[in-house]
Amino acid sequence: TPIYYRPTKAVIDLQAITHNISSLQNYIGPTIQIIAVVKANAYGHGDVEVAKTAIEAGATMLAVATPDEAVHIRENFKDIDILVLGASPHTFIPFASAENIILTVFSTEWLQLAQQYTPLLNQQRLHIKVDSGMGRIGVSTKEELMELYTIINSSDDFLVDGIFTHFATADEEDSMYFDNQATLFKDFLGALPQKPRLVHVANTATALVKDPSLHYDAVRFGISMYGLLPSSYVGTKLPFPIKPAFSLQTELVHIKKMQAGQSVGYGATYTAEEDCYIGTIPIGYADGMIRKLSGQEVLVGGKRAKIVGRICMDQSMILLPEAYNVGEEVVLIGCQQQEEITIDDWAHKLQTINYEVPCVITARVPRVYK
Amino acid sequence: TPIYYRPTKAVIDLQAITHNISSLQNYIGPTIQIIAVVKANAYGHGDVEVAKTAIEAGATMLAVATPDEAVHIRENFKDIDILVLGASPHTFIPFASAENIILTVFSTEWLQLAQQYTPLLNQQRLHIKVDSGMGRIGVSTKEELMELYTIINSSDDFLVDGIFTHFATADEEDSMYFDNQATLFKDFLGALPQKPRLVHVANTATALVKDPSLHYDAVRFGISMYGLLPSSYVGTKLPFPIKPAFSLQTELVHIKKMQAGQSVGYGATYTAEEDCYIGTIPIGYADGMIRKLSGQEVLVGGKRAKIVGRICMDQSMILLPEAYNVGEEVVLIGCQQQEEITIDDWAHKLQTINYEVPCVITARVPRVYK
Ligand SMILES: Cc1ncc(COP(=O)(O)O)c(CN[C@H](C)C(=O)O)c1O
Ligand SMILES: Cc1ncc(COP(=O)(O)O)c(CN[C@H](C)C(=O)O)c1O
Repeated sequence: TPIYYRPTKAVIDLQAITHNISSLQNYIGPTIQIIAVVKANAYGHGDVEVAKTAIEAGATMLAVATPDEAVHIRENFKDIDILVLGASPHTFIPFASAENIILTVFSTEWLQLAQQYTPLLNQQRLHIKVDSGMGRIGVSTKEELMELYTIINSSDDFLVDGIFTHFATADEEDSMYFDNQATLFKDFLGALPQKPRLVHVANTATALVKDPSLHYDAVRFGISMYGLLPSSYVGTKLPFPIKPAFSLQTELVHIKKMQAGQSVGYGATYTAEEDCYIGTIPIGYADGMIRKLSGQEVLVGGKRAKIVGRICMDQSMILLPEAYNVGEEVVLIGCQQQEEITIDDWAHKLQTINYEVPCVITARVPRVYK
Repeated sequence: TPIYYRPTKAVIDLQAITHNISSLQNYIGPTIQIIAVVKANAYGHGDVEVAKTAIEAGATMLAVATPDEAVHIRENFKDIDILVLGASPHTFIPFASAENIILTVFSTEWLQLAQQYTPLLNQQRLHIKVDSGMGRIGVSTKEELMELYTIINSSDDFLVDGIFTHFATADEEDSMYFDNQATLFKDFLGALPQKPRLVHVANTATALVKDPSLHYDAVRFGISMYGLLPSSYVGTKLPFPIKPAFSLQTELVHIKKMQAGQSVGYGATYTAEEDCYIGTIPIGYADGMIRKLSGQEVLVGGKRAKIVGRICMDQSMILLPEAYNVGEEVVLIGCQQQEEITIDDWAHKLQTINYEVPCVITARVPRVYK
């Protein structure tokens, strides 16, 4: 493990991830496979370590967003099945075939371009993406689906290994849009002369709170593998407790007594109303703690303290409840003594979703594992 | 150069950086040194390539925020002077001494802890940080300064190589707070028995629009090295034109005709009012194009197109002005034909400063250079 001199780090609890996967497996039963969604550097948790943990916990496939992410996973794991959920350029096909990476297909044009690489080293496994209402990628008519299916089946170099779709509103209480998507997918699936090996439609929300028939052959487990809820609605119907894996911490690098009337930070926007202690922490917006988090609370000495003034690129100032020493631990996300600050707290402050928070913690922040 | 299969990339124009540095050198004159501020992965532009360009353009020192950034620069550049602007733990001192990395000092306690590593391999150069009003790090009384200066001078292992401060409001029209900081620093400097080798106080705004006497021995050139303005006020007083270096582009990976009434994206929040073309681009919030940018315009075929619906983790949808083919270039930041979208446009949409935008474009987006 490399040495980091700056005390700022994200601490990832891999046991929490193991717990979340085992609990899901227990809930869906042993015959349904788990596809661990480790795209986007495992939602910012670190792709390699999370992938390792997920495989050990029983996941049979890893899903990534881009071909480049698949390459990175394959460099570290020789045997596990990898599915690229997003578009891959046809230029990636020779590599994918050689490295046994499963690709998503949703265009006949792409398949025609794919022919130029045949014969392939290995038969290229493909999952057909159906756009049942997400409006992102996928075939959206049965005719397109059948055309695609037929072209693939007519070539020895390609195989329809799976078919899938993705829901736009699985985490919402109102299920009308969701039901329409589910029905449409079922209808498309029924049109195929033969069921592919792996049919999968369920993201976390679908896996946890929708009809178990939608588990099909496998569920794609993303956000709750990391111990976060897809939505507060899903939180009200959770079949098992989940444990968050991500925490973020640093240390005080400077403490100073400020006199009433003195100001702090760019624009001198925060002025002390009375004499107080100001601490400086070595984390800023270039770490992904974006400026909009000014005013957010952190934990120090088991107490809450506010970020005051504007967040700088590499540092931030906090109003300390009392004098502490350099080196005192500061928790930005996670628990300290009786207190806790969650990713959801950050998401609330940022008016965004919890998914975004760890993804945007930049590469400058080392991920360390416990 | 590694191969990237996903077409999303940040293209960095190193000639623009050269131009900005040369123009500054021309403006401040040949006797004032330029410290290139390459912290935070060179404000997201890529530390190694920017450092190389800055050195070639005449910068005599590189400034970073953290010891870890200094280590990375030193791995790539054996000889250049490197200054760590932020706090370094005392445990870093043996490495800093061995690798000739200049550290910032602002605490006698730290200096006392530093003694345990003596005798050092090389004399450790230190720059004293004065907190003249930023309220971040630094000594804030003349007594502390003198104490620090005396301890350092009494040891053969350490040298006062420089002294500096940082302004909180250099980019604002109102100069009262700024003038107070400048006066206080001058007073502190005058108290030293001998001027250190390198006195530096000027960030971009100070260097460009304040009294040239504040250039002292060197200026710390950050934001405008990258061709961005510290503030619109500074823009009204620029002594030379600057050129932006950062652009962000991708390609369409899917195009579909949508019927009026059909919806797009998570939550199905965008519904087509009339039949239209929707394009999908492989960039999302895990790339640092955060969800708040929903509704932002991008450029395609020389025309403006809006991001519709919620931005996903790895993909986004845009309302196309007409049908395009897969592979069509999409510019998110930069120029395309007659149109331009700037980092300032993003900052405006995000209600933040331009500094934050490239810093938060995550490591998943490769930086390529032209
Ligand atoms: C195709 C696909 N399957 C499965 C998942 C896992 O979803 P969840 O994390 O809710 O379990 C995602 C996540 N999507 C992200 C969030 C996105 O595209 O924005 C996905 O795009
Ligand atoms: C000590 C110091 N010197 C010089 C600079 C360069 O400033 P500019 O980019 O305006 O030229 C910075 C940047 N600071 C960043 C922006 C921060 O701490 O938030 C700095 O912290």
